[in-house]
Amino acid sequence: MQQQKVEKLRKTLKEKGPDGFLVSNFYNILYLSGFKTLVDDEREAWMLITAKNSYLFSDSRYLNVKSQNSNLKSTSQILKLITPEKGLVKHLQEIIVEEKIKKLGFEGEDLKYGEFLKFKEQLETIKIVPTDRLIIYQRAIKNEEEINKIKRACQVSDQCLTEIIKTVRAGTSEKEIAFKIEFWLKEKDYNLAFYPIIAIDENSSVPHYNTRSGNNKKVKNGSVILIDFGAKYQDYCSDITRMIFVGKPNNEVLNIYQKLLSAQQKTIKQFSNETICKNLDSFCRQQLTNSYSYPHSTGHGVGLQVHEYPKISQTSIDTLQQNQIFTIEPGVYNEGKWGMRIEDTILVKENKQIDVLTKFGKQPLII
Amino acid sequence: MQQQKVEKLRKTLKEKGPDGFLVSNFYNILYLSGFKTLVDDEREAWMLITAKNSYLFSDSRYLNVKSQNSNLKSTSQILKLITPEKGLVKHLQEIIVEEKIKKLGFEGEDLKYGEFLKFKEQLETIKIVPTDRLIIYQRAIKNEEEINKIKRACQVSDQCLTEIIKTVRAGTSEKEIAFKIEFWLKEKDYNLAFYPIIAIDENSSVPHYNTRSGNNKKVKNGSVILIDFGAKYQDYCSDITRMIFVGKPNNEVLNIYQKLLSAQQKTIKQFSNETICKNLDSFCRQQLTNSYSYPHSTGHGVGLQVHEYPKISQTSIDTLQQNQIFTIEPGVYNEGKWGMRIEDTILVKENKQIDVLTKFGKQPLII
Repeated sequence: MQQQKVEKLRKTLKEKGPDGFLVSNFYNILYLSGFKTLVDDEREAWMLITAKNSYLFSDSRYLNVKSQNSNLKSTSQILKLITPEKGLVKHLQEIIVEEKIKKLGFEGEDLKYGEFLKFKEQLETIKIVPTDRLIIYQRAIKNEEEINKIKRACQVSDQCLTEIIKTVRAGTSEKEIAFKIEFWLKEKDYNLAFYPIIAIDENSSVPHYNTRSGNNKKVKNGSVILIDFGAKYQDYCSDITRMIFVGKPNNEVLNIYQKLLSAQQKTIKQFSNETICKNLDSFCRQQLTNSYSYPHSTGHGVGLQVHEYPKISQTSIDTLQQNQIFTIEPGVYNEGKWGMRIEDTILVKENKQIDVLTKFGKQPLII
Repeated sequence: MQQQKVEKLRKTLKEKGPDGFLVSNFYNILYLSGFKTLVDDEREAWMLITAKNSYLFSDSRYLNVKSQNSNLKSTSQILKLITPEKGLVKHLQEIIVEEKIKKLGFEGEDLKYGEFLKFKEQLETIKIVPTDRLIIYQRAIKNEEEINKIKRACQVSDQCLTEIIKTVRAGTSEKEIAFKIEFWLKEKDYNLAFYPIIAIDENSSVPHYNTRSGNNKKVKNGSVILIDFGAKYQDYCSDITRMIFVGKPNNEVLNIYQKLLSAQQKTIKQFSNETICKNLDSFCRQQLTNSYSYPHSTGHGVGLQVHEYPKISQTSIDTLQQNQIFTIEPGVYNEGKWGMRIEDTILVKENKQIDVLTKFGKQPLII
């Protein structure tokens, strides 16, 4: 599977020009090789893709011992050990000579400016050129294995939500709900796709309410509870948002919820007529004409990261394609009072057919 | 407190030249303003520091509602709302005119090459210049509030370790120990500084063993268990490593443990004679002459992130200074068999006095 991904990337590179391609991004390395270092924001591994070979560079904290990274055994990467004496640049210099590389592409959207300066200075015999989102765009189209993993992540989040909602009652706090979701997932060896957004009453009117540093509101009778979370199964994410009402909400809230749900469902149906993501975003907004705000995009791709391509927003240049997986998540926010959002993770199948992967019910959930 | 940090940065900027400074890094924004978005790897907030003002930019997912980010109330940032119509660049263009900025510094070690190109193209009337690690170096010196938070994080990890070790017995797996640490911390509203490294027997010979994706070995009689983890208290980290032996280890292991402990303690004492970090690293290595490997640095600063400055390594250019907090963590790795590491988080006080903040005992812990 990994080898096919590298081959697909090679085709793109052939069209674009560079005869070597340096991969710096943690998730792109994971995608291409299955290799994962401990943290995603320190450069502990690199890859180099050439016409013939695919190299993986890391240091002896990771590469020395056979018991570690067994998932590398099945891949065809040539492993190169980074040491204090022989760093990445020295390895690159050797390979550049061996494989007669003249133009080295790098990930312009990932490499830091300071790193670029270093490479430019130290690899002076060749041209180094930025590329723009080659792998992350490739990642937008999922293969069968990836689709199955995301389907499973969606099932897991459905199950989790079903169980957790049973424990919510007057007095339960935002952090308690978030903690229960996290605990439920992790004790089963799943993971969080991101830290859950659990927002009660006025906190729900902040689309990206930070549950961890917020004021930890408690559920009371009449509360509106927004639950936005995702599970991770074998590195792949799901993303779902549901609303819970504690006792029957007032008519205005209930009416707006029904309009929001209708907008979400119509937008999902609209896929068969409209594949331009920007237009889909507009279509969704048109269904939501009310006096409240909707200050975020309608959706985003989901994969190894919870925010990928395509983007379904006003500034998007993407189009929908088969085997993409993304969210549709319109919202309505009444500042300082309440906010509501309904979000599903969705797969585009053959012939513009779609499959809503998150199956938790969307009728108003009154507890 | 935040205002003092901004003032200190302004002094550095005055020496370096730029009359405006764009801050992109999540942790640097948190450090300077107390403001935190949901994730650390998507550009959801920016700061601009000028001679007179300090601006914070974010969008209405964060800035619209008063209930959110209450910690901003006490700061002096001017809040600027990013909208689809008025993005960061438009705000910057306005401020550049208003404050007559001619040279805008950016974080060369943080800004992506692609982002740099965009700014360069769109801010064509001024010079934009990279800076190198200005804030992260400033962060190496902690103020009283930061020291107190890290002290507390160290206390918390000591307590956690004390409790968790009681639950370890033959049959306990690596992931179970990691899970128990994580939930001990999170149920008390602390956090992990990083995902724990729990490595049993041969897995402990991989310095950065990945417990989450490893083979989940179980404790047995005679096991050597490496536990490397940290707590986070109010965004500040601790970092500690201890070894546990299940039954009395053989003489070779016990002797090497004692030598390792002696090396760690001598290195800590050496602070009063030696303030050049590179020399400290060498000093520590000299204590550890044996046939096994030691393929990582002797220590690193600890703060909002678990890896900060100073670096105590062979390539370090740092010197020890008052109010730095960092680790000392020599290790001995017998590939494929066992590895041992002893790590403390340490504060440098006045007159080269030191305070070992992680106080969990270091005599061989045999359970």
